[in-house]
Amino acid sequence: MALTDLTLDECWAYRPELTVPVDLDGFWARTLTADQPGQATYEPVDTGLTQIRTFAVTIAGFAGEPVHGWLHLPAQADQPLPCVVEYLGYGRGRGRPHEKLFWAAAGFAHLIMDTRGQGWSAASGSTPDPHPYPAGTVPGFLTRGITDPDDFYYRRVITDAVRFAQAAREHPAVDGDRVAVTGISQGGGLALAVAALCPDVAAVMPDVPFLSDFRRGVQVAGRAPYTEIVEYLKLHRNRGSQVFHTLSYFDAAVLAPRATAPALFSIAMMDQICPPSTCFAAYHRYGGEKELRIYEFNDHEGGEADHQVEQLAWLRRTFAAESPR
Amino acid sequence: MALTDLTLDECWAYRPELTVPVDLDGFWARTLTADQPGQATYEPVDTGLTQIRTFAVTIAGFAGEPVHGWLHLPAQADQPLPCVVEYLGYGRGRGRPHEKLFWAAAGFAHLIMDTRGQGWSAASGSTPDPHPYPAGTVPGFLTRGITDPDDFYYRRVITDAVRFAQAAREHPAVDGDRVAVTGISQGGGLALAVAALCPDVAAVMPDVPFLSDFRRGVQVAGRAPYTEIVEYLKLHRNRGSQVFHTLSYFDAAVLAPRATAPALFSIAMMDQICPPSTCFAAYHRYGGEKELRIYEFNDHEGGEADHQVEQLAWLRRTFAAESPR
Amino acid sequence: MALTDLTLDECWAYRPELTVPVDLDGFWARTLTADQPGQATYEPVDTGLTQIRTFAVTIAGFAGEPVHGWLHLPAQADQPLPCVVEYLGYGRGRGRPHEKLFWAAAGFAHLIMDTRGQGWSAASGSTPDPHPYPAGTVPGFLTRGITDPDDFYYRRVITDAVRFAQAAREHPAVDGDRVAVTGISQGGGLALAVAALCPDVAAVMPDVPFLSDFRRGVQVAGRAPYTEIVEYLKLHRNRGSQVFHTLSYFDAAVLAPRATAPALFSIAMMDQICPPSTCFAAYHRYGGEKELRIYEFNDHEGGEADHQVEQLAWLRRTFAAESPR
Amino acid sequence: MALTDLTLDECWAYRPELTVPVDLDGFWARTLTADQPGQATYEPVDTGLTQIRTFAVTIAGFAGEPVHGWLHLPAQADQPLPCVVEYLGYGRGRGRPHEKLFWAAAGFAHLIMDTRGQGWSAASGSTPDPHPYPAGTVPGFLTRGITDPDDFYYRRVITDAVRFAQAAREHPAVDGDRVAVTGISQGGGLALAVAALCPDVAAVMPDVPFLSDFRRGVQVAGRAPYTEIVEYLKLHRNRGSQVFHTLSYFDAAVLAPRATAPALFSIAMMDQICPPSTCFAAYHRYGGEKELRIYEFNDHEGGEADHQVEQLAWLRRTFAAESPR
Amino acid sequence: MALTDLTLDECWAYRPELTVPVDLDGFWARTLTADQPGQATYEPVDTGLTQIRTFAVTIAGFAGEPVHGWLHLPAQADQPLPCVVEYLGYGRGRGRPHEKLFWAAAGFAHLIMDTRGQGWSAASGSTPDPHPYPAGTVPGFLTRGITDPDDFYYRRVITDAVRFAQAAREHPAVDGDRVAVTGISQGGGLALAVAALCPDVAAVMPDVPFLSDFRRGVQVAGRAPYTEIVEYLKLHRNRGSQVFHTLSYFDAAVLAPRATAPALFSIAMMDQICPPSTCFAAYHRYGGEKELRIYEFNDHEGGEADHQVEQLAWLRRTFAAESPR
Amino acid sequence: MALTDLTLDECWAYRPELTVPVDLDGFWARTLTADQPGQATYEPVDTGLTQIRTFAVTIAGFAGEPVHGWLHLPAQADQPLPCVVEYLGYGRGRGRPHEKLFWAAAGFAHLIMDTRGQGWSAASGSTPDPHPYPAGTVPGFLTRGITDPDDFYYRRVITDAVRFAQAAREHPAVDGDRVAVTGISQGGGLALAVAALCPDVAAVMPDVPFLSDFRRGVQVAGRAPYTEIVEYLKLHRNRGSQVFHTLSYFDAAVLAPRATAPALFSIAMMDQICPPSTCFAAYHRYGGEKELRIYEFNDHEGGEADHQVEQLAWLRRTFAAESPR
Repeated sequence: MALTDLTLDECWAYRPELTVPVDLDGFWARTLTADQPGQATYEPVDTGLTQIRTFAVTIAGFAGEPVHGWLHLPAQADQPLPCVVEYLGYGRGRGRPHEKLFWAAAGFAHLIMDTRGQGWSAASGSTPDPHPYPAGTVPGFLTRGITDPDDFYYRRVITDAVRFAQAAREHPAVDGDRVAVTGISQGGGLALAVAALCPDVAAVMPDVPFLSDFRRGVQVAGRAPYTEIVEYLKLHRNRGSQVFHTLSYFDAAVLAPRATAPALFSIAMMDQICPPSTCFAAYHRYGGEKELRIYEFNDHEGGEADHQVEQLAWLRRTFAAESPR
Repeated sequence: MALTDLTLDECWAYRPELTVPVDLDGFWARTLTADQPGQATYEPVDTGLTQIRTFAVTIAGFAGEPVHGWLHLPAQADQPLPCVVEYLGYGRGRGRPHEKLFWAAAGFAHLIMDTRGQGWSAASGSTPDPHPYPAGTVPGFLTRGITDPDDFYYRRVITDAVRFAQAAREHPAVDGDRVAVTGISQGGGLALAVAALCPDVAAVMPDVPFLSDFRRGVQVAGRAPYTEIVEYLKLHRNRGSQVFHTLSYFDAAVLAPRATAPALFSIAMMDQICPPSTCFAAYHRYGGEKELRIYEFNDHEGGEADHQVEQLAWLRRTFAAESPR
Repeated sequence: MALTDLTLDECWAYRPELTVPVDLDGFWARTLTADQPGQATYEPVDTGLTQIRTFAVTIAGFAGEPVHGWLHLPAQADQPLPCVVEYLGYGRGRGRPHEKLFWAAAGFAHLIMDTRGQGWSAASGSTPDPHPYPAGTVPGFLTRGITDPDDFYYRRVITDAVRFAQAAREHPAVDGDRVAVTGISQGGGLALAVAALCPDVAAVMPDVPFLSDFRRGVQVAGRAPYTEIVEYLKLHRNRGSQVFHTLSYFDAAVLAPRATAPALFSIAMMDQICPPSTCFAAYHRYGGEKELRIYEFNDHEGGEADHQVEQLAWLRRTFAAESPR
Repeated sequence: MALTDLTLDECWAYRPELTVPVDLDGFWARTLTADQPGQATYEPVDTGLTQIRTFAVTIAGFAGEPVHGWLHLPAQADQPLPCVVEYLGYGRGRGRPHEKLFWAAAGFAHLIMDTRGQGWSAASGSTPDPHPYPAGTVPGFLTRGITDPDDFYYRRVITDAVRFAQAAREHPAVDGDRVAVTGISQGGGLALAVAALCPDVAAVMPDVPFLSDFRRGVQVAGRAPYTEIVEYLKLHRNRGSQVFHTLSYFDAAVLAPRATAPALFSIAMMDQICPPSTCFAAYHRYGGEKELRIYEFNDHEGGEADHQVEQLAWLRRTFAAESPR
Repeated sequence: MALTDLTLDECWAYRPELTVPVDLDGFWARTLTADQPGQATYEPVDTGLTQIRTFAVTIAGFAGEPVHGWLHLPAQADQPLPCVVEYLGYGRGRGRPHEKLFWAAAGFAHLIMDTRGQGWSAASGSTPDPHPYPAGTVPGFLTRGITDPDDFYYRRVITDAVRFAQAAREHPAVDGDRVAVTGISQGGGLALAVAALCPDVAAVMPDVPFLSDFRRGVQVAGRAPYTEIVEYLKLHRNRGSQVFHTLSYFDAAVLAPRATAPALFSIAMMDQICPPSTCFAAYHRYGGEKELRIYEFNDHEGGEADHQVEQLAWLRRTFAAESPR
Repeated sequence: MALTDLTLDECWAYRPELTVPVDLDGFWARTLTADQPGQATYEPVDTGLTQIRTFAVTIAGFAGEPVHGWLHLPAQADQPLPCVVEYLGYGRGRGRPHEKLFWAAAGFAHLIMDTRGQGWSAASGSTPDPHPYPAGTVPGFLTRGITDPDDFYYRRVITDAVRFAQAAREHPAVDGDRVAVTGISQGGGLALAVAALCPDVAAVMPDVPFLSDFRRGVQVAGRAPYTEIVEYLKLHRNRGSQVFHTLSYFDAAVLAPRATAPALFSIAMMDQICPPSTCFAAYHRYGGEKELRIYEFNDHEGGEADHQVEQLAWLRRTFAAESPR
């Protein structure tokens, strides 16, 4: 463990010029208005837990396709709750319903989105990605449909993520003015995208965000998953500009200036998977008020339980300031 | 490099009891008669080569879906040629048209099948797998649809492979009585499956075959791709019997007794990817006449150029014996 | 990932002859009666959680030395609760108070013991091991004081563990007849030792237990921490019998026949850290009623969230059967 | 996979000052005129191929020592052919005669030179290096005789390479005005050296060239074979300047300004074996017209089949421009 | 093997600003005067050697605690000898008495200090570190007591080292005006600390010194033991400044300006364990006359037997100049 | 670190049938009588040591070729000394003259033989191997000339080793009746070969011997250098029996029954380079009286300084028993 990217001083100074596609807003407006989201369903689940009630969630995502998840509520809640919508890290599915108890134990509604097609690494998933699998995709998701923004996998996932944020706002147990989005790594990148595309979100907490400043990620990160893109271009040698053009529609650092909600970022300086410079690219460009916790000696695990304490305090402060009821 | 599986003596004695699904023949009869194969197309390609003519091939595979490939012919051929149909190793696509010149340079028609969805490792592919991507699939292809034989990825690929063998027999430049199937690793497993399902094939040359004796492969092979199954079952802890039930329909060692064509196998004794015992399982159970070349000190690369010499000589002998024109 | 130890059939048949020191019972009687445990203290902690109340625990362990931990209680509990006492895996400390919420969220009292001196790998610790550090100890804990059972580190830790089980039985919020001990890896070995030394414990749930059948562990496990013993004997070449003599007082497989409480074990067949044969040694010799969940395709992570479901169901059944109130 | 050397912009700007030995031209003149090359022999080989005729070649190399190779000709050739002389990558021998069919299948004469002593990695060799083996040579070839330019292994190999280019020009089936030299890695370094020493060569195609800018290669490349030099100097601590003095006679970047033939280079930006900066050093200093194909996301495999297409097109254009017959 | 830190030119220019604690001198004065060193004992050992006489040494170190070692004398010595006091590398104990024979064979008295608590890697130790083991210490010694300079492990070790240098000066077989201190890695850092704290030392020979410029060591060194500090801060995320404050009292680069004895340094440019820049930091700041041997192509092994030759010559020259008897 | 070969019980029972070439004795008689050894020269070297006198040795080895070495004598020796002749481990050269001082410091004459061509790994060498380098040799020495016993590298090295033992016996400072041969790894294999071929040797001390039971070594050892043979046969697939035929002339386990001198072996049970079974093969077949020290928890480093103590005591006992002067 040592630095493998820029130093902290260099990261503060790192301001890459990123190409913003001219039709970025149009692309997303077209995407998000294409289908009216369907009805969300919430089925109670018997987890054996007594302090937390859990519901199996199905929400209509991209193209109205069903996307699963969990909703956790504190067992005794008698008024609308602030809500944390969580997007997951790359490879992880929603898992068993009793795996993530922190936010509900702290008195929040907690909505977790399964990432379509994923769920093989640390927790299983249950949402398929019902789309043709293009030839030559590098195993994984980063190059699936990468030759065209319309076909790219993350177009579907970001749309799902927006739908989950919207569903959270509309859930009767939730106070729609106090919905935060968060996530680690891929989940952090998705939270940033939702913040940019969904102005009603009240707070954003991206941790060691992935999907940010792709070109640098690809040059610096020696470990998966940015390397999926390298593997792809290694074989499809003439598709470099096409690939980076597609990615520019989904790059959290490109989308970040469009966000306005207050944000609490975390970045780890010895992160080998999401190099800190790439996270700083998103942080520097973020459009809303922002705070940052830097973990100088951590790899991609970032702040872990320590950062949860930071998030809980920050979120209570932020919601208190915003919603003086 | 050292032995990592059974010794050669132990391999000769290794006769695993494999479960044959009761409806194995029915499953495959139903699968293969479901769609009548469509029309194959052969478009000339300008490779810049003067000694070999190449055609971009499209053949209707599973569900009539287009599967691509290359057909190479010697530049001057004036009568029907014996033909080698080649299936590719895991991860490899058909690649550039000038990559595999051996069989055509030796005077054979040479038909190469792209493996649907694959083509990211050593050569690119151009055939998508237009089917929904199930939740929780381990990146790669070995667990795609693994919960049901009807949905399993290799049902589609084996059907494609049968169609390519049939198309070869029907091509006007080919002598349909002298069509051999071959392949390395995954290609070797597919060649065995085709030999079992397609009795008109005149010769089979499986090299270090993959997709054989899955249960042992999963227990012994410490390296991908058998490990995809381990990764899947590591998370889906209660799906073991379901998974191995599905796999039994596609296991080259289960299918091998149904084959009757003469066969030339190769097996490498230090193979870390397809442990030699798993290849011996298929060899021992193979239903036709068979020869075996053992490479005692080779890993999964097997016999390479040395084995091509063996194959060329064996195939000429075999076709000479069979087709005394 | 593949098998690296015996197969499942071989594990069922594996019954090692282990040397039981003649003064084993005397050693532990002498150790456990040496000091009367002091007073336990429980200080409320502000975790920010609303559904679970947490207390910082200090219990007098070996030689009356203070050992820390956490006690979690469901927020609304109005009668004595069944309790789960948890010992931690090697390297892990008690961590942040909000890290382990499962048992309290399920309505149990949950007492977590910091492992003295540890807490550097996955979660920090706060309990020192106030004893001289012997020359030549391999970094880690497995060889600390290994030349004499009286000085061996695990004499202190097992005593601490017994004290925690006793303190749980005496806590006013706990139903002393329904105290279970559990833990993963090192925690599983400690749970077994406590079960052997502390007959009042009502249930035992050792997961992938470490500290079991040391001699085989040392021969088979290629990864830490059993390898600490190899490293030690590599340099102290003439201390083999002395070392294994010391270890025999602390070997969970040696202690297991003395236990009588019902037990739920878990063992992982691809476990590279605690080879399954070593865990089977403890299971086979366990003195009480016992059940076993085998995870055939898992490494040392074992059953994880899936096994928590098994444990919760088994524990409710076991406590219901035992304590028909 | 990520960048491990300079970025592309930095590579374009990288212009190292390399020390040119004062007697460089004299050294090579003396070396190349020392022996008059002997008679080349060409024995037909039965490869089983019908479209390509192959000859086992023996050409008198350094000190008149026999150096083997293969000559491939298209089966039907009725006039002098353009010829590609290929030098091999480090470790590779000439292999089986049917391994490299591309250039002959494209209508070229194709002469392949065995690298003396080599042939253990990817293809076997048949040419010994009949010279005393100096004490302390690091296994491999980079430090063999490195204490004196006269004894250095590459003095012999470069001389062999020049002899092969000359022999190609004199072969009756070859149009001596259209002889190109090429090679990957070590072969690319040799092609550059031949271009510098043998002005009659009509075209040069060095791919990811090795043997270029040794000092930087040694400082940057963490993987073999540049590391052989590090290993040598690690033990022979006081021979640094002697070693780099010897290497300067054989450095492709030092020799490059002497070349005049048109050249097509390839360089891979994620090359861990021949860091791109070292290849750029040769490119920038190359004396003739030059083109460059950059593979931004490739390791040392470089452009592979894609680059063959580039080479074929470029070579046809270049020969058409040069030899307007 | 390649450069993994600054180039040689950059190292010459590297002058970090290091924080010197305001009470540095007071801290060490207080520490070193706290206990009067006790009586040293020297017991003859039967090593079986005939040319060298060896004594088992016990010297009162920190807090008067016994610290062991060896003293070697040439078999026939009839007048006070110059003496080399050697401190050991990290992990190594004093080992067997016949392991280090060079200095005595060269006619010097040679006093070797066991490093308390260490002795598990390359040679065993026999000196315990009789102090409580703090919670959460990363296995190893670099973070033991790191939250307070008074408790830090190296406070004790440096005190031991000073006591050994003093004992050497007082030994009847030794010429007290010709005592040198030396050591490799950790031993080099200790030698520098002793040079700074013990002005009577006549010569200092630090090789590839460890414990120097900690902050950079932690950022650059990807391999143990600097990484112990990273591991610690990875979990104790808020202790960064506390940790580096403690370390500043023990940093060889911070202490170096206080030294006045002539010094011979060695630094290895491909050192992955003690990055050359960190060694240069100590070298540049060293207060006495100094020479430096640079090993450009060596990893942490540095100059080994070659450097012993340098040391022997330099030390004879230095002692001759200083002590013209 | 764990067992990677047979257990100790299995090693005691392991008795492989090895093929003894029919002309084994003739081969060696012919080899050793071919050249009369030339005159040995001994040049004093200034090492700076005062207790040990060192001479640079040159002895006529195979074909009378000069082979270098060192001779160390205690500084004051006034009668013929017992002598230890040491052969070196693979890769190591004779190094600097002051590197190995143990035997001379213990009062023995100590003659060290440089291994021709070697000296790149741990210590440099100065003896070339003035023979042609065959095509396709795997870098290293194990396959150099392996197609013919007459050309095989170890024919030359074993002859050199015999010459050194003979020269020791004839040196005026040596008592020719008390000459022992020893060595670690390759040196141990050479010592065994000399013991078999040179009946005048009075004692043999092979440590973790290499070059023994080649066929098993090649199947079991996953690390170099036995793997050189695998690499060779991986490419030269049809040379297996030829290679093992050649090796049978040089296999220490094949030669061992011919030896008669008393022997002290050492074997390490976790040896990954020379698997213990292969060493046991030589031990079991050894023709003279024999003792064995087993290091149960050591890798290829074996007994190190601990074993030196064993050797010194054993050798003194053995020489005392043999030579009652």
